[in-house]
Amino acid sequence: MTAYTATVTVRLKHGVLDPEAETTQQALERLGFDLEDLRSADRFEIDVEAADADDAADRAGEMADRLLANPTIHDYDVAVTEQE
Amino acid sequence: MTAYTATVTVRLKHGVLDPEAETTQQALERLGFDLEDLRSADRFEIDVEAADADDAADRAGEMADRLLANPTIHDYDVAVTEQE
Repeated sequence: MTAYTATVTVRLKHGVLDPEAETTQQALERLGFDLEDLRSADRFEIDVEAADADDAADRAGEMADRLLANPTIHDYDVAVTEQE
Repeated sequence: MTAYTATVTVRLKHGVLDPEAETTQQALERLGFDLEDLRSADRFEIDVEAADADDAADRAGEMADRLLANPTIHDYDVAVTEQE
């Protein structure tokens, strides 16, 4: 078994309203920043012991399906790196 | 001017309690998942028009300093990619 870190990024599907991001963008514009768009996402870094990187990615994907993401409104992606 | 996307990842400093991550980890464990640790972070994807990638990164860093991150409890990093 090897120690991996699986990073699950959960973002809203295209078309789903994101009032938090909208508010953040407006606040940045009020501070004088010039930006075209802002999207927010949640990121989970999960340390797991797994046989290989594919196994770690599969388990992280299952965690996203079961708990971290809501399939009605969210997309997610999983990236796996070996811990040093 | 070129269109860039700057991704700002804001995470809690080491040692700062993260009850949301702790609750998420416990919920995953109750669902039968085996994990060593879970950390949560906020991710902002910011579309900006900038002269070059360094300019885009500087501006995103300034946005993090001014609004997105609280320096008392947060660390952040910035990654810039050119939009296609």
